[in-house]
Amino acid sequence: MPLSVSPTKAPFSLLVPGLDVPAARLYKSFFLLLLLSLLTPPSHYSPSLPMTDLLPTPTQTPIQAKLAAVRSHLASHNLDAYLIPSADEHLNEYLPELKQRRQWISGFSGSAGDFLVGRETSWLYVDSRYYEQADLEVDGALIQVVKVGLEGQQTLEETLETLGKAASQAGKLFRVGYDPFTVAVQQYRDLQKRLEPAGVSLEAVSENWVDRVRSQRPWSELETPSDYAQSPLFLVPDALSGESVPDKLKRLREKMQQANGDVLPITKLDQIAWLFNLRGWDVPYNPVFIAYAIATTDKIYLFTNLSRIESSIQQAIEPYVKLMPYEYYAGTLTSLLSPSTRVLVDPKHTTMGTYRLLKSSTKDRCKILETANPIEGMKARKNAIEIAQMQAANLKASRAKTRTMKWVKDQIEAGVAITEADVAAAIEGYYREEADFQGLSFNTIAGSGANSSIVHYGTPNPAVVLQSGELLLLDSGAQYAGGTTDDTRTIAIGTPTATQIDRYTAVLKAHINCAMQKFPKGTTGAQLDGITRSDLWHQQLDFGHGTGHGVGAFLNVHEGPNGISKRVNEALEPGMINSIEPGYYEPGWGGIRIENLYVVQELLSATPPETPAPTPWYYFDSLTYIPFDKQLIDPAQLDSRQRDWLNRYHQAILTKLAPTLTAPEVAWLEAACQL
Amino acid sequence: MPLSVSPTKAPFSLLVPGLDVPAARLYKSFFLLLLLSLLTPPSHYSPSLPMTDLLPTPTQTPIQAKLAAVRSHLASHNLDAYLIPSADEHLNEYLPELKQRRQWISGFSGSAGDFLVGRETSWLYVDSRYYEQADLEVDGALIQVVKVGLEGQQTLEETLETLGKAASQAGKLFRVGYDPFTVAVQQYRDLQKRLEPAGVSLEAVSENWVDRVRSQRPWSELETPSDYAQSPLFLVPDALSGESVPDKLKRLREKMQQANGDVLPITKLDQIAWLFNLRGWDVPYNPVFIAYAIATTDKIYLFTNLSRIESSIQQAIEPYVKLMPYEYYAGTLTSLLSPSTRVLVDPKHTTMGTYRLLKSSTKDRCKILETANPIEGMKARKNAIEIAQMQAANLKASRAKTRTMKWVKDQIEAGVAITEADVAAAIEGYYREEADFQGLSFNTIAGSGANSSIVHYGTPNPAVVLQSGELLLLDSGAQYAGGTTDDTRTIAIGTPTATQIDRYTAVLKAHINCAMQKFPKGTTGAQLDGITRSDLWHQQLDFGHGTGHGVGAFLNVHEGPNGISKRVNEALEPGMINSIEPGYYEPGWGGIRIENLYVVQELLSATPPETPAPTPWYYFDSLTYIPFDKQLIDPAQLDSRQRDWLNRYHQAILTKLAPTLTAPEVAWLEAACQL
Repeated sequence: MPLSVSPTKAPFSLLVPGLDVPAARLYKSFFLLLLLSLLTPPSHYSPSLPMTDLLPTPTQTPIQAKLAAVRSHLASHNLDAYLIPSADEHLNEYLPELKQRRQWISGFSGSAGDFLVGRETSWLYVDSRYYEQADLEVDGALIQVVKVGLEGQQTLEETLETLGKAASQAGKLFRVGYDPFTVAVQQYRDLQKRLEPAGVSLEAVSENWVDRVRSQRPWSELETPSDYAQSPLFLVPDALSGESVPDKLKRLREKMQQANGDVLPITKLDQIAWLFNLRGWDVPYNPVFIAYAIATTDKIYLFTNLSRIESSIQQAIEPYVKLMPYEYYAGTLTSLLSPSTRVLVDPKHTTMGTYRLLKSSTKDRCKILETANPIEGMKARKNAIEIAQMQAANLKASRAKTRTMKWVKDQIEAGVAITEADVAAAIEGYYREEADFQGLSFNTIAGSGANSSIVHYGTPNPAVVLQSGELLLLDSGAQYAGGTTDDTRTIAIGTPTATQIDRYTAVLKAHINCAMQKFPKGTTGAQLDGITRSDLWHQQLDFGHGTGHGVGAFLNVHEGPNGISKRVNEALEPGMINSIEPGYYEPGWGGIRIENLYVVQELLSATPPETPAPTPWYYFDSLTYIPFDKQLIDPAQLDSRQRDWLNRYHQAILTKLAPTLTAPEVAWLEAACQL
Repeated sequence: MPLSVSPTKAPFSLLVPGLDVPAARLYKSFFLLLLLSLLTPPSHYSPSLPMTDLLPTPTQTPIQAKLAAVRSHLASHNLDAYLIPSADEHLNEYLPELKQRRQWISGFSGSAGDFLVGRETSWLYVDSRYYEQADLEVDGALIQVVKVGLEGQQTLEETLETLGKAASQAGKLFRVGYDPFTVAVQQYRDLQKRLEPAGVSLEAVSENWVDRVRSQRPWSELETPSDYAQSPLFLVPDALSGESVPDKLKRLREKMQQANGDVLPITKLDQIAWLFNLRGWDVPYNPVFIAYAIATTDKIYLFTNLSRIESSIQQAIEPYVKLMPYEYYAGTLTSLLSPSTRVLVDPKHTTMGTYRLLKSSTKDRCKILETANPIEGMKARKNAIEIAQMQAANLKASRAKTRTMKWVKDQIEAGVAITEADVAAAIEGYYREEADFQGLSFNTIAGSGANSSIVHYGTPNPAVVLQSGELLLLDSGAQYAGGTTDDTRTIAIGTPTATQIDRYTAVLKAHINCAMQKFPKGTTGAQLDGITRSDLWHQQLDFGHGTGHGVGAFLNVHEGPNGISKRVNEALEPGMINSIEPGYYEPGWGGIRIENLYVVQELLSATPPETPAPTPWYYFDSLTYIPFDKQLIDPAQLDSRQRDWLNRYHQAILTKLAPTLTAPEVAWLEAACQL
């Protein structure tokens, strides 16, 4: 599934609520607007309306009531706006239900998007992956959906700058409250540096207001508190992780020493899970558990809900880990500090909440050394056993998706009506048939027809039947013990049109151009991103997300530091696993994405005799073996190098999958792999 | 000419002095080493040797004596090392003779390379452009040439880290002195952040020690002080600049206001020359003059040597510029400050010297807002008149180089022996024949045979005769009133080998792949760099410098913020002028580089009907029209798109050049453009 997008900055304009909002919500919105229009000039809420009342009034939608409750805090704290980012204390992309604050307050369920609540207006900032989804999910009468990257749409920073300058002209500061445990240090600094001169003041508020509102009536009565940090922990044996915890700790301490650090707070859940060879299911799709950790030169602390750890696991890890309750993190961290203590802080992956524990009002609690968290790079470079595990897991997922493709084609040929939800159920069923299935690695995207152009299309719709002439985009992944998978195939329903074939072939060529590229040590994700797009650009085609993201080994489907996009200056190193997933999206018409996972391997062939320096050369070794829909390929548009790659890929699919398939499946696969 | 290189970091090892040091110097070094070996264990100078004596002893080379003099200051200031970067107060790439401190003290004449003088050892850090040149120019017995990017070579930062850690173990700080007016703010911070934890302290020393040594005996007696900031200034009329100074100032103030700045110190000479439509020749090759400027919301100050400004020019600019002596810069800047003054500082293009004027010991002299200097982006986006000037200038240079290529081929065919220096003289002669010639835009690189593999080969050698079977790399440029040029052609002397043709064709394909690429708004230099290298990488070939650099309009041949390399995240915008110059270099065998200049233009053709968003698309419009040496091209290796581009390029060369050439020249050119 795609990770990063390429927003560009654009001037400000207001958004007209989209006409593609579901009818019921649309009517409700119109009704509310009509009501409001009797009381107040259009486009503003009247200050005389009871906006600060905590209870929804009869005319209020739930979202309207929640916003009113947040606004009541704005008034009492003398703030002008409150910032609600997607993230939580651990800067998770996927959030435990309790921490899905932005979704709870705004209704928008996408994986990214800041929400800003002003006294009268509120703004949701979404990138190109979510343009359509946000229009569908959000009540445009209450919340301005800002499509960052489109001409005329103002970013969060630009909105705040405008508001700050307007306040300055009135001789006031524009004061924005935020929960420091939801904002990364780097993010805070970028905001602060840009906004402070514009007259905007960022004010840390210790209590999270969304949590506060949620804990009060009527929601405290309407909603049952969800489980939080309750999932049982389980060990990943060394046979699957390839490295014992003591060995990982030894390497970590070497890297801490190289960086001259005495103390390393570890706040990202995948880093903690990797370091301790432990997993849990506290967060949807990610096999992680809510925890903090702190490494020192001679101790390692793990802070989590201890009650859910089985005694056998406690006993297994206690020899090298000091286990403590989650709530002891802040106190322990501060107790480890002295003015001469050198604390390593990763400004990208640490919240301002943790940073403020180190800094506080006095300046010399400790010495802060800013550096990338060494675990991030260690985790990204998979060892041979992790690579083998990832190969095995992705082969299972490849078999499941191949079976799903056959199943879809069979249903269509047989004239059976199937829906997006049926497809999602089918792939999950096939995933489950494979050994050691643990769950999905993200919410399956099964978008058909116009829905296929929604890059991160939400829940597959049980009412949307696949129609002949449409494209089906199936982006899905699973977690198997030892390995995480992620792949996308786009499938023609019925006979594809010439344009569908042209566009699909263009995307396939982009995929192959990246996948077959040899590259020297030091090559960055940005360089490979350009290589992927070159052929598309010649046709003036492009896609609004990055070419690929890093993937964890039985961990998160999105991880750093590697990636392939114009913003990734990180070099790709052997052992790193990356998706390659170019696409093409046209609202209304549909979308295409072709995604495999690859591990970077070193090319062992001899360098040409004239080449002097022994520069290591790398290549992408596929983990994914699923046929492309050959109905959508125009082989005449492939050059000989692309055709060679495709032939070799088809051969590899057959070699790897055929032995475990039934005879009819093999026959189908052989035909599918025959261009 | 290439700008940036791609150093990679590598572990430490000592360098054996190269065997390609000229024989006389080698014998001298051996003699000195022999002498030393009688007194001291090998690989160290004995502390008992008179290293702090200011006068060269009979056994000292001039460089040895200079280093000893610097080391005497180390001792008296209780510092462990002194850092001598290439740069001066204005962070110039090309330096006035008086500021060529690194060259004066080390002997190395390259355009980049830091020099570190320790108590016993000294290190010169050069990138891949200068690996060979540094070995040729530097006495390896006195100075360790560190080839950054090669395995086993330690960077400046790594060396200092090692030294710092060693000092820490002895319970001491490793103290490095530097002149704050030779280090950019960003560069200082990067060093400081990395080195402070390793026990290295960077200490600003107010006096430049190289200047100090140079002003003392024996050098004060041996050397005549060179002219400094004496060249007469001249105006660039609006007809050539396309924008009057008041209009530029108006736009600048708008951008300062957008950035909330009250005061903008301007310290880069090309920014000053551009802003005031003034030029001078204080610096080799760059039509700039030594000056500072300060813009405020209502005033603009220009600080320079006023005695060299003609009264007519003074009168022309005095209505809008406050002229002041160069020495008044620091005092005026500090006089403009108050705790509420918001000063814009570009950390990449401002020295720590200027920064310290703003910061000082008290922290509230002013409010510093860090941002890119707005002039950098304004200057890079050329207006229509600047583009027309650049087109005209580059057409002149193209004609000159075409004539030089014909001349070289004619001499070789006629059996006349010609040298590298003859080629450099020939191109300069042809440049001079064109109207409004002002000088070269950089020292012509005319490298033949093995010399062609030296990316920034120094002065063409009058003793090196072009030999049949070799390649001649001719990288040169000129300054014409209104326009700056830069282009490279590689020419076969006699009949080329199959390998020469293969490599040349590979580089040509890389050049064309970038030159013909359409790309959407927002595309970065890093993405285009990948596109350029893709085909080369498939053959496991690469080159160690960036693909291209920005070029000024009648200004510096290297300018920012645009460029094409893996480290350029800046988007290419219409009006930006960039070189495309992939290459291939193999020490001993020779080198190939193919360079044109291009201006980014917007593609005006209609977007395909299915494309929804009105994304602007751009292309590269060539400014350079010089045939490639067709003897070196294997047309069978070009794909149809590349061949189309080449055919159109050949046609354009004929259309643009033929009308101004003699009949025999036209005949030669027609044959050269006929594949």
